[in-house]
Amino acid sequence: MSTKSPLVSILMGSDTDWPVMQAAGKALDEFGVAWEARVISAHRAPDQLAEYVRSAEAGGTRVFIAGAGGAAHLPGVTAALTTRPVIGIPCESKFTASLDSLLSVVQMPPGVPVATVAIGGGRNAGILAVQILAQGDEGLAAKLKDFKKRLVEENLAKNKNIQKPS
Amino acid sequence: MSTKSPLVSILMGSDTDWPVMQAAGKALDEFGVAWEARVISAHRAPDQLAEYVRSAEAGGTRVFIAGAGGAAHLPGVTAALTTRPVIGIPCESKFTASLDSLLSVVQMPPGVPVATVAIGGGRNAGILAVQILAQGDEGLAAKLKDFKKRLVEENLAKNKNIQKPS
Amino acid sequence: MSTKSPLVSILMGSDTDWPVMQAAGKALDEFGVAWEARVISAHRAPDQLAEYVRSAEAGGTRVFIAGAGGAAHLPGVTAALTTRPVIGIPCESKFTASLDSLLSVVQMPPGVPVATVAIGGGRNAGILAVQILAQGDEGLAAKLKDFKKRLVEENLAKNKNIQKPS
Amino acid sequence: MSTKSPLVSILMGSDTDWPVMQAAGKALDEFGVAWEARVISAHRAPDQLAEYVRSAEAGGTRVFIAGAGGAAHLPGVTAALTTRPVIGIPCESKFTASLDSLLSVVQMPPGVPVATVAIGGGRNAGILAVQILAQGDEGLAAKLKDFKKRLVEENLAKNKNIQKPS
Amino acid sequence: MSTKSPLVSILMGSDTDWPVMQAAGKALDEFGVAWEARVISAHRAPDQLAEYVRSAEAGGTRVFIAGAGGAAHLPGVTAALTTRPVIGIPCESKFTASLDSLLSVVQMPPGVPVATVAIGGGRNAGILAVQILAQGDEGLAAKLKDFKKRLVEENLAKNKNIQKPS
Amino acid sequence: MSTKSPLVSILMGSDTDWPVMQAAGKALDEFGVAWEARVISAHRAPDQLAEYVRSAEAGGTRVFIAGAGGAAHLPGVTAALTTRPVIGIPCESKFTASLDSLLSVVQMPPGVPVATVAIGGGRNAGILAVQILAQGDEGLAAKLKDFKKRLVEENLAKNKNIQKPS
Amino acid sequence: MSTKSPLVSILMGSDTDWPVMQAAGKALDEFGVAWEARVISAHRAPDQLAEYVRSAEAGGTRVFIAGAGGAAHLPGVTAALTTRPVIGIPCESKFTASLDSLLSVVQMPPGVPVATVAIGGGRNAGILAVQILAQGDEGLAAKLKDFKKRLVEENLAKNKNIQKPS
Amino acid sequence: MSTKSPLVSILMGSDTDWPVMQAAGKALDEFGVAWEARVISAHRAPDQLAEYVRSAEAGGTRVFIAGAGGAAHLPGVTAALTTRPVIGIPCESKFTASLDSLLSVVQMPPGVPVATVAIGGGRNAGILAVQILAQGDEGLAAKLKDFKKRLVEENLAKNKNIQKPS
Repeated sequence: MSTKSPLVSILMGSDTDWPVMQAAGKALDEFGVAWEARVISAHRAPDQLAEYVRSAEAGGTRVFIAGAGGAAHLPGVTAALTTRPVIGIPCESKFTASLDSLLSVVQMPPGVPVATVAIGGGRNAGILAVQILAQGDEGLAAKLKDFKKRLVEENLAKNKNIQKPS
Repeated sequence: MSTKSPLVSILMGSDTDWPVMQAAGKALDEFGVAWEARVISAHRAPDQLAEYVRSAEAGGTRVFIAGAGGAAHLPGVTAALTTRPVIGIPCESKFTASLDSLLSVVQMPPGVPVATVAIGGGRNAGILAVQILAQGDEGLAAKLKDFKKRLVEENLAKNKNIQKPS
Repeated sequence: MSTKSPLVSILMGSDTDWPVMQAAGKALDEFGVAWEARVISAHRAPDQLAEYVRSAEAGGTRVFIAGAGGAAHLPGVTAALTTRPVIGIPCESKFTASLDSLLSVVQMPPGVPVATVAIGGGRNAGILAVQILAQGDEGLAAKLKDFKKRLVEENLAKNKNIQKPS
Repeated sequence: MSTKSPLVSILMGSDTDWPVMQAAGKALDEFGVAWEARVISAHRAPDQLAEYVRSAEAGGTRVFIAGAGGAAHLPGVTAALTTRPVIGIPCESKFTASLDSLLSVVQMPPGVPVATVAIGGGRNAGILAVQILAQGDEGLAAKLKDFKKRLVEENLAKNKNIQKPS
Repeated sequence: MSTKSPLVSILMGSDTDWPVMQAAGKALDEFGVAWEARVISAHRAPDQLAEYVRSAEAGGTRVFIAGAGGAAHLPGVTAALTTRPVIGIPCESKFTASLDSLLSVVQMPPGVPVATVAIGGGRNAGILAVQILAQGDEGLAAKLKDFKKRLVEENLAKNKNIQKPS
Repeated sequence: MSTKSPLVSILMGSDTDWPVMQAAGKALDEFGVAWEARVISAHRAPDQLAEYVRSAEAGGTRVFIAGAGGAAHLPGVTAALTTRPVIGIPCESKFTASLDSLLSVVQMPPGVPVATVAIGGGRNAGILAVQILAQGDEGLAAKLKDFKKRLVEENLAKNKNIQKPS
Repeated sequence: MSTKSPLVSILMGSDTDWPVMQAAGKALDEFGVAWEARVISAHRAPDQLAEYVRSAEAGGTRVFIAGAGGAAHLPGVTAALTTRPVIGIPCESKFTASLDSLLSVVQMPPGVPVATVAIGGGRNAGILAVQILAQGDEGLAAKLKDFKKRLVEENLAKNKNIQKPS
Repeated sequence: MSTKSPLVSILMGSDTDWPVMQAAGKALDEFGVAWEARVISAHRAPDQLAEYVRSAEAGGTRVFIAGAGGAAHLPGVTAALTTRPVIGIPCESKFTASLDSLLSVVQMPPGVPVATVAIGGGRNAGILAVQILAQGDEGLAAKLKDFKKRLVEENLAKNKNIQKPS
């Protein structure tokens, strides 16, 4: 999905999570970070997941973003397979007010962290990946500072939408 | 843990879950079902888990019992690796009133079921394994009928403990 | 619902749960397992439930699948009446984010397990029943292995749906 | 537990619930209402429960009080067996902050109500039974009015315990 | 709403709860029990509520049914004002999956019980009121037995709706 | 939004919360209390928030009303910046049944209170602000007494909407 | 509890809530604000509560602080009886992780706000009352500014407690 | 706490969170990563927090770890002040089963991510910080691979603790 070698791998258990995961990719695009995306379920294709994660890490992936819903094991299982940072996105689920997704992703045991963002937080997963990659990339770090300034401007610009009707 | 070849494999992510898992083993002992137990975390030792589950299935394991707490992925990951029934035990966790353990175990996606028992339900996991094994074992089926009769007797015997003080 | 003597009995408290329960039946059909279904509420028709469960067990039912919502007692009451494995499906309820259904089904006391699947998990209930029946049926066991391979293929095939728009 | 024929039957699934259920009996004693108590689990002794409830109703029981914890089916199953009012007490459970007990008792389907009191609300179950029995008993109705006056006095008397230290 | 003097008073905090409360009234109509309904909020019209409850009790009301949502105080406040049984209906609320309504109604302190039915359980509130009134009314008691028989028939009749498509 | 110097500042993190916050403004309008509203996110524009809150307090703002959803920090951060009372509105969120918004607003540590109203409770935030301002304003105090009388009338007037169909 | 006429009335349903409520009083003492405290349950002594609240308001009470647990109606019922600001404290309850107390206090309907502080938040209730009273009292306003400065100092002083052991 | 210039700043709102935060520091020590720790509450010392975060970032801090409980705003407020990655630790709280801490930390709005670890997950916060810093540090990356191997060994070594008593 980029001609550059991808630095970020975006994983999801099912294509139904694509709209959320795509928001992560879109954020990476805004910062010019190369990425690729795969549907590989931790429950349906465990061997393929292990193979992919290890070959991706060997091939240059620096950050994994994994999203899943319900008993959402994909982020944790990915974290078990790599020493790279794994960002977990709890995707909306149909029941339990999505607490199942959130708790399955975030409550990892000592030794195997998952950097969890908000439920459905695809965009923030992408931004967090950029923040991580900016550790060794001054260009990215500068873009993040610009981004943060735009956040202020865009936020304050919304004041025009709250005019009291007279 | 038995001289007979084990029919049931009991898996846990950490030895801290042993008291709960041991209750499953004790129930199996009451019915004369051979079992073995292993500590293999889905998050810390994923390769070893895959290897164990597949060799156990090849070696004759008919039912897996897996317990974990928090982001409890062990039962689901085990179910991803075998076509044998997997019984999941959500183990008590320190936070969220143990809802993290329960939801992480039970809310599995279509195609990969985990037969979930109550939080901390080690004994019931063992009994459920016996019920499953009794499909093709008349002796076990008869023992289950005896067991059910004893449940009645033991339950009613508790009436002696509720005498009103005069 | 099959000319073969049913091995699985599917029970529900109301016909409103039929869409979920039917998914269990459909899964059984895929594996060629004979089943029958009944609406018998644990709360409205308790005597008829007891009579049905006992006669079904005597008539050859090897696994029960029971689904209910809200104060979902049907799976547990069925488990009280038989020594066969009982698979419980917590059906969607209108309030409490369906936690009422889930907790009422899964939190059974020692001695009387219910093998609980996910909320609304009709399909997984059917698959779990097949896994249980495969204990003594090499043909079913082989079908499950094929099924698991198809899970991999179908999962990976979804990658074609996540192409990034250019 | 009384020489008078009991008007209230107190049911519990296990003797571990006796401290809570006893508080119901104690409240009945304060109003001079005869009662009896039984341990009969809906899950371990379903036939004995059905037999007891029906013979109790035939023998003069006017109100049932049933308490249970976890997947707490006893109140609902009792309500399925009688047309008399059934008061349900959700007993404390070890996990889920006792929401399992509460939701299993209160969320009954149309047609089969359970009059649910607070978690652990043994005393209120007894008082509610008295309120129900007072429908046709002027003496009880008068006692309830006295009781309500004492509630006021006892409540206001607690003001002596909140003196600010000087 | 009946030419007979009402035995049951149905109270709600707002007319938005009328559809739920009306189901209680409809159940009472099926049993020929006279009732009346009032909108009187515990929070907006506390004096009028106190006056109504006390004059209703004096005028012959034997059972109160009160429904409210959110911080649902109406049932508890009504129970504070009368010695008659008060049936509480937690009405659907927009947030917290209606747990606010349920917990506000059911978790009453010792001395002041509210007989709580399911969230949105208008019909069951009516049936419970009939069960309470049947304490001293053989005709009602007989109707309840007929009603229970019809529950069985209606439940089993639903089997015709679950035919498997061929 | 008023020619008078504003006594109340209404703050929100995003214009999507405007419908809820506007209800606060509308309540203030009913009592003739001058207010102004601003979109300033605690997360996107922290410096601007600090500057605004301090200059508003210096300029005469007596009460702050702040609303946010999800990890709703705006009310708490505002309270950190001023000694004036801060009223917090937990705004509806998409997940967790809005418990995230409620708990993020209300569970403040000792020393920095936020006066929290109901989820989505814009109107009540406005009324509470009036109650606070009425401490030193006899005119407002009198208007509040009139308002409370109208609450009674409007509540009882709803009785015309619950006529039983004949 | 002060020779000055009390400006704040502290109400609780039971003396068991006194430790939490006393923290509110202690905060008021620090600011030199006169207060009084009463045990008057909304459920056990409703008439006495109405009489007290109205006479207190007439006698000069400017702010009410009310605390209760479980189905915690006292703050809301107090708010129904006065136009003065009512601060609600959800007190710890034994079950439901205290969500019953919180939701019963905060989820008030439009027209009758309760200014809710954190569960067990006695101290913050006192500080919020001071913030409200400072509307018309320059002395109090100045003390609050001093208090806020001390918060900073006390907070930063805690750095001495986190020295890493060598 | 290290003679090297710190790469990681550990922030907490109160010294009561030190035991959890110290586990993060200990993990960093194991990897030889320099860190410093500060108590600065977002609610009590907002100006000092802003000043510290900005000067720390300018001074070389590459990752922030922030922990708090209840309405846990510290991680989110820190993330508002820096473009560096912020790792959030929800600390145990006394009520709501710690859901308040978790939801306040993780549910951040788009644009301002917090990399959330498990409730009480101090050690994992430290490890995640190492994973982030290893982006540009081959030595750290190698240490992480060793660490992961030790996880396997330590996990499997626990099998000696689960021997069945004979």
